[in-house]
Amino acid sequence: MEILKNKAMEVAMKVKKLGQDDPRRIIHSIKVGVALTLVSLFYYWRPLYDGFGASGIWAVITVVVIFEFTVGATLSKGFNRGLGTLLAGGLGVGVDYLANLSGQKGEPFVLGVFVFLIAASATFSRFFPGIKARYDYGVLIFILTFSMVSVSAYRFDEFLTMAYQRLSTIVAGGAICIIICIVVCPVWAGETLHNLVTSNLDKLGDYLEGFGGEYFYCCDDEEQVTSIEKDKSFLQAYKAVLNSKSMEDSMANFARWEPKHGNFSFRHPWKHYLKIGSYARQCAYHIQALNTHLNFQPPNPSQFRTIIQAPCNTLSSESGKALKALATAMKTMSDPSPTSLVHLNAAKSAINDLKNCLKSATTQTPDEPSNLLAIIPDATVASILIEMVKSVEDLCEA
Amino acid sequence: MEILKNKAMEVAMKVKKLGQDDPRRIIHSIKVGVALTLVSLFYYWRPLYDGFGASGIWAVITVVVIFEFTVGATLSKGFNRGLGTLLAGGLGVGVDYLANLSGQKGEPFVLGVFVFLIAASATFSRFFPGIKARYDYGVLIFILTFSMVSVSAYRFDEFLTMAYQRLSTIVAGGAICIIICIVVCPVWAGETLHNLVTSNLDKLGDYLEGFGGEYFYCCDDEEQVTSIEKDKSFLQAYKAVLNSKSMEDSMANFARWEPKHGNFSFRHPWKHYLKIGSYARQCAYHIQALNTHLNFQPPNPSQFRTIIQAPCNTLSSESGKALKALATAMKTMSDPSPTSLVHLNAAKSAINDLKNCLKSATTQTPDEPSNLLAIIPDATVASILIEMVKSVEDLCEA
Repeated sequence: MEILKNKAMEVAMKVKKLGQDDPRRIIHSIKVGVALTLVSLFYYWRPLYDGFGASGIWAVITVVVIFEFTVGATLSKGFNRGLGTLLAGGLGVGVDYLANLSGQKGEPFVLGVFVFLIAASATFSRFFPGIKARYDYGVLIFILTFSMVSVSAYRFDEFLTMAYQRLSTIVAGGAICIIICIVVCPVWAGETLHNLVTSNLDKLGDYLEGFGGEYFYCCDDEEQVTSIEKDKSFLQAYKAVLNSKSMEDSMANFARWEPKHGNFSFRHPWKHYLKIGSYARQCAYHIQALNTHLNFQPPNPSQFRTIIQAPCNTLSSESGKALKALATAMKTMSDPSPTSLVHLNAAKSAINDLKNCLKSATTQTPDEPSNLLAIIPDATVASILIEMVKSVEDLCEA
Repeated sequence: MEILKNKAMEVAMKVKKLGQDDPRRIIHSIKVGVALTLVSLFYYWRPLYDGFGASGIWAVITVVVIFEFTVGATLSKGFNRGLGTLLAGGLGVGVDYLANLSGQKGEPFVLGVFVFLIAASATFSRFFPGIKARYDYGVLIFILTFSMVSVSAYRFDEFLTMAYQRLSTIVAGGAICIIICIVVCPVWAGETLHNLVTSNLDKLGDYLEGFGGEYFYCCDDEEQVTSIEKDKSFLQAYKAVLNSKSMEDSMANFARWEPKHGNFSFRHPWKHYLKIGSYARQCAYHIQALNTHLNFQPPNPSQFRTIIQAPCNTLSSESGKALKALATAMKTMSDPSPTSLVHLNAAKSAINDLKNCLKSATTQTPDEPSNLLAIIPDATVASILIEMVKSVEDLCEA
């Protein structure tokens, strides 16, 4: 009993957390509930039932199947479903007509052959990457409807009435879905994509801004340690960027279907986000390489490190600021050039400072024989930072 | 006309390429066709039709919806569908009984409230990551069946017969799917996962084996250039590893459902593959960092470069060999320790050589004042290679 209670508490906590993380989830659940209840009216309300007959069940199926979290996904599924059903219905009627010509005996064979051929080739078409990405569901519905139509046509003579009833209920179900999905607190895939990409840039910027302090902190006073310990979460946040590709791809796919919303027009250049996303991943890979260096701090920092510290710090924080300026510009949909270019130029001049430091460093310290080995980690960090600036530059151009 | 012909040729070429890349795709398409044709028998063959009635259509739906490319995916969907249908059916009957108690007038309201509550909470449950990964489809079917059952129960009194017919056709359709999927040239998700992970390791190994030659080649004779130019594909292959996470995750999810096949038992430790996969991605990130250095070759190689060339070459090729030995060991499912450890130790001793080189380098060349700047890229490469060996070591332990 006690265990059950604990278990229930645990689940309740999880539910609360999921809801708090993203309240749109709760709203979405309620929306699905409302849509389904509305659709049930097809059954409960007698005049409607008399009009549509048992086909009302198809409205229920449609709602359950096409109602997705984002508007774009719902529209895309609805479009796919409609197109697939229509095409398959037409083809099914055609095939049925052909099969009828072949007489009572031949009909099942002709139908069987057609079902086999069309199902096999449609299934194969799902392996095309282009179709897979956008019309996968439509092809599935196409196969489904085609086999249902050709198979039931063999039995039912009142076939056309049934087709009409079904189509109209599917349209009604789809319309209810789409209206509820768009009108009541819509979740736009485009907006989600936009936020995802900008927050990824922000995360990278945070990391870079913090990296200098983190890497060189052993050279600073010990007092600062506790305050730095507090918010190390930014050191982990960038990891989410590494595997963001599939999420971005699917969001961009859905966003294509969405009408104008907020600041986004119908044919917003969503592909651009994918490009920015891939540059951001490029940066994240560099950061990943930087991150491995955070863990092995040499016990006594070399003289070399103190020399490069200042320019490296500037380099890292300025490129971080450039990224964050970019993110802010994207958020407000303004021209990113001015602020981020300032930071980028600051980062570039830091590279030059760093190079000068390095040149002078060699001439200054010929008395340290084994320093080359000791400086390598630091030098690596510096060089990765330089690479990073190049990536950030790519980003700014995009 | 000419354009149409060209278009058709293009599509035909694409189809051929898709088929050649993976002949299992063609077989899969044929399997789906056969399954659907078999299921159509429910309709064409009179004795079966008399037994099952119009519910035969549910067998068709089941086949179209649960027949997936891999055995694991099909089993998982079939299980989800079965469980979802049963649970929802039971719950639907229960709710219907409750609703009946509330009289003729109250029934639709009670049903509506229940549909709303259950649909909303089930939809919400799909946001739980654990449920999302494994039972997403089951929950969908649950909502679908529940609303269908409770809604149709309101109209049909011969409800139980219908439920029985539907269940039996769904079971029959599912059984046909699963049997065809397993018996005829099965595509195992587990095997696919296994091959994916091993080929990823192979790709990384190829890259590392080739990297030394590629990076230091300007120091070698010019004659070799043409032969090296030929096969640079290995320099790109590793990029596939970077974004392999989502594919690996879904395959591992499906593999859990698969019975014993080939060398894999029922409860093969599939999670292990995910671990190896994430280490492999770690390596790939390092390689990504290395790869950026391939593009900027200094015009005249420094003396430093000639010093580190030999140990770096060994380092890179030995860690590559260690990875490939690991991949081979995984392919033959044997103990990876002996061969890969040999290479790993060789790589480690190369690190020591490199360190010694570096130490002696500093003492040998104090006469080159500005060399520190010039060596940084090389030093970075060396240090990334050292990191790489650590990652490879992690891999071997896994």
